[in-house]
Amino acid sequence: MAFHFPKKGNTLETSQKMQKNHTMQSIEFTQQDKDGLYKTIFNRRDVRGQFKPDLIPKDVLARILTAAHHAPSVGFMQPWNFLVVESANVKQQIHHAFTEANEEAANMFDGDKQQTYRSLKLEGIKEAPINICITCDKNKAGPVVIGRTHIKTMDLYSSVCAVQNLWLAARAEGVGLGWVSIIKQQALHNILGIPKDVVPVAYLCLGYVSDFHKEPELETANWRKRLPLGEQIYFDQWQQTRTGEEEPLIQALNDNEKFVSQYKK
Amino acid sequence: MAFHFPKKGNTLETSQKMQKNHTMQSIEFTQQDKDGLYKTIFNRRDVRGQFKPDLIPKDVLARILTAAHHAPSVGFMQPWNFLVVESANVKQQIHHAFTEANEEAANMFDGDKQQTYRSLKLEGIKEAPINICITCDKNKAGPVVIGRTHIKTMDLYSSVCAVQNLWLAARAEGVGLGWVSIIKQQALHNILGIPKDVVPVAYLCLGYVSDFHKEPELETANWRKRLPLGEQIYFDQWQQTRTGEEEPLIQALNDNEKFVSQYKK
Repeated sequence: MAFHFPKKGNTLETSQKMQKNHTMQSIEFTQQDKDGLYKTIFNRRDVRGQFKPDLIPKDVLARILTAAHHAPSVGFMQPWNFLVVESANVKQQIHHAFTEANEEAANMFDGDKQQTYRSLKLEGIKEAPINICITCDKNKAGPVVIGRTHIKTMDLYSSVCAVQNLWLAARAEGVGLGWVSIIKQQALHNILGIPKDVVPVAYLCLGYVSDFHKEPELETANWRKRLPLGEQIYFDQWQQTRTGEEEPLIQALNDNEKFVSQYKK
Repeated sequence: MAFHFPKKGNTLETSQKMQKNHTMQSIEFTQQDKDGLYKTIFNRRDVRGQFKPDLIPKDVLARILTAAHHAPSVGFMQPWNFLVVESANVKQQIHHAFTEANEEAANMFDGDKQQTYRSLKLEGIKEAPINICITCDKNKAGPVVIGRTHIKTMDLYSSVCAVQNLWLAARAEGVGLGWVSIIKQQALHNILGIPKDVVPVAYLCLGYVSDFHKEPELETANWRKRLPLGEQIYFDQWQQTRTGEEEPLIQALNDNEKFVSQYKK
């Protein structure tokens, strides 16, 4: 039997197939995989009060940071840095800056609301064994970044996605995390030596906890209720709520309490 | 035996315990749960090119939106709305606005880079059966919001956390998602009727896909490499890299390829 060179068309097809196999995948997600994700999402809490002093093992911390590093980023710029704070002295300075800002903040609320505000514990800076400041370096990939040409805040949003990945990974690892936002950005620049073109996006406190709250603390404290999801959805235009063909979706959304609560047991 | 009223101290203790049981939980996360989360995080991709026209069932969409609605938000303000776009006419207008911005964007790159830029498919607006614009309504919880008093962008960051939750839930459900950021915010306001005080944070394209890319497309296209995570970590001060006691962490971080790749099979 004579040896035949493959026809040109076939070669191309094979090459495309190989290319496809090289770059594509069809991983299946099992119900268990989905359950793991939803369980994490619905049980994630903003932790301020239950930190234990136990150190977070380096391999756990490495997994959490790796999850953060695999966040989406505009133009694949990966604008984040992770400034890990363990020094008691630095924490003390951050705590001082928080206290100053928090006093200003409390005075912005009136009467009962101010009293409730002052009763809330809003940070765990000193108790948490580790604090992490996640930043956004606007110059990390040069001045022109694909995808950031028209919405300049896209790089900040990328760093926030890293925060959320880190937060979820921490929860699944049993590590509590609290985001401290009552602080002046300039104080974070000064205390941590962060340059002008780098934005401190999030200051986070991490540590193992005695327990997690079942529901957000501000909800339990009657500060604010969870909004009905069905009412947050519009169709095709702002404030356009449809009751016809979209009714099954709205119905499914309003029935979602059962879906969520199965993961809280 | 005489009946004793419990001592006052005991009553208080019991009441605190009940309170604790009511609000606290100690859910364990199994290795399977963690695997589900990490698998999702490491296989999430920004999808532009493999959308299939198949409709997303309402119960799947409801789960994805519920995940988004359980994102963290500053002051529990839940500043997001979800504007679901299915109208071909609206998609067409958005696509037009993208094309205009994309032409401007391409011209910002020089030579080879511009050629590569023009070869990239950067959106799936019309092919994706559903587009979702996630917004941030700055007035959703009144003018003074707990936690937003000093960092005014915190509400935007909350909406971004909703984007990331939605993205991860979509991936686990087998739904591809692409974030279109090459568009003028004003165009989103105009086309979708979004008011001035509401920020269109993210315009997303969603749909089932023929396959997912193994790696980010910009990485495969040699646009930009994934940065070594160990080099993105500082300790206590900006640019302070320690080689002593932190060596095990840096080592663990640089070894993370194996950890990630086990979830890509």
